[in-house]
Amino acid sequence: MLKVIAEDFIQPEAIEIVLPLYRELVEATKREPLCIAYDLYVDEKDIGHFIFIEEWPDRAALDEHCASEHFKRLVPMIDQYKRKEATYILMGAFDENNDTRLFNQ
Amino acid sequence: MLKVIAEDFIQPEAIEIVLPLYRELVEATKREPLCIAYDLYVDEKDIGHFIFIEEWPDRAALDEHCASEHFKRLVPMIDQYKRKEATYILMGAFDENNDTRLFNQ
Repeated sequence: MLKVIAEDFIQPEAIEIVLPLYRELVEATKREPLCIAYDLYVDEKDIGHFIFIEEWPDRAALDEHCASEHFKRLVPMIDQYKRKEATYILMGAFDENNDTRLFNQ
Repeated sequence: MLKVIAEDFIQPEAIEIVLPLYRELVEATKREPLCIAYDLYVDEKDIGHFIFIEEWPDRAALDEHCASEHFKRLVPMIDQYKRKEATYILMGAFDENNDTRLFNQ
């Protein structure tokens, strides 16, 4: 299991432009057969701060997502309006059953 | 709906000490009646970087969690071993049906 947090920081004046791009990206990604979860949230204190919480079976599935037509078309369109670089964290689940092995993948 | 990402940064030499504290915190929080989700992950590139992804019905439920016996006892114990300040983001869901209203709560 691979969990991902990806954060975008969009210029305030461009929010209305990126909303339909995000909507299309979420809808197309949720239709990918390997996508377990791909949910988009907005920071309550900063409406230009968009946060994806994703889940994929493994790194290969994430790479396939990043190579998809919709990702390669829509992400550069969204990135035109960024106010700073996007960030991401790749994570494993905290393993509740084993102190010495942090990841359950 | 209130989604939360809370990030802790623990000293590398203290990881084995905090693991059982995190385990107890997760188990006790999941038993709170208002808790929708409270899952802990670890950054693949930094095993001292712990990330909670939480979901609560509203801010009052989150406040109740932060006032719980297990939170007030365990979080300061974990914080003794932090290497920098924890961060958190409170988020609303991206509303797929309405461009002009970003939060669905």
